Amino acid sequence: MDELFTDAYFMKKALDEAQMAYENEEIPIGAIVVFENKIIGKGHNQTEKLTDVTAHAEMLAITAASSYMNSKFLDECTLYVTIEPCLMCCGAIGWSRLKRVVFGAAEPKFGYSKHGNLLPAKTELTTGILEKECRELMKQFFAEKRD
Amino acid sequence: MDELFTDAYFMKKALDEAQMAYENEEIPIGAIVVFENKIIGKGHNQTEKLTDVTAHAEMLAITAASSYMNSKFLDECTLYVTIEPCLMCCGAIGWSRLKRVVFGAAEPKFGYSKHGNLLPAKTELTTGILEKECRELMKQFFAEKRD
Repeated sequence: MDELFTDAYFMKKALDEAQMAYENEEIPIGAIVVFENKIIGKGHNQTEKLTDVTAHAEMLAITAASSYMNSKFLDECTLYVTIEPCLMCCGAIGWSRLKRVVFGAAEPKFGYSKHGNLLPAKTELTTGILEKECRELMKQFFAEKRD
Repeated sequence: MDELFTDAYFMKKALDEAQMAYENEEIPIGAIVVFENKIIGKGHNQTEKLTDVTAHAEMLAITAASSYMNSKFLDECTLYVTIEPCLMCCGAIGWSRLKRVVFGAAEPKFGYSKHGNLLPAKTELTTGILEKECRELMKQFFAEKRD
């Protein structure tokens, strides 16, 4: 059984979200927001279903977490996301003042870090958690799309 | 009477949205999306009301326009927004492939251009339309907040 409340434990939950996106034929990215070891927001990419480019996993998870906390600010929360956030999601992370961001695999083409370190200086960043699993799900999705 | 369908004409409509935000004690920024001279999406900042940092005027207008067009992509549309978009909204503009962006007043602190030209190369950009009116509404809001 997985050890409780580690970064890998929570990233596994984000991967469960990514899997839901995959099953709905969406680009398989998932995210959760955690406060005091409790998941208070979840999201998986729904840009196709909602016909809305803003419906990224992170955006939906941040909106849900803010609703739970009844606060725009998530400065005691951690965002776990399977793939490096894009520019839009990086901006939302900044506005929400998330204490910490953990992502699985880097995204060299669309990840925010292509444009420099755009996260607020205060935001703690951890990368590479379940990197292989996070990346493999994306690879599998795009390989099937090409076939 | 205002000349129809000019940039100033449409920016005035975005300013009407900004005014609604102002009256709701939200940071007064408004946006509209236009397709073939028709307004197909509107939004004003609602981050306080919705307790959600993602509820910027541009995001709401893009979501509304995508719903109207039944397309994630707005590559035949123009976004009018009273103030220079932030990083998050700049990212959303990129994903939505907006043909053209028109903003009123620059935002040196939170505008995307602080971080370089992050809009897609194909996006046409026009700035300074009703600049004074767009900026004055913001100034008035923050002056009242300070008092």
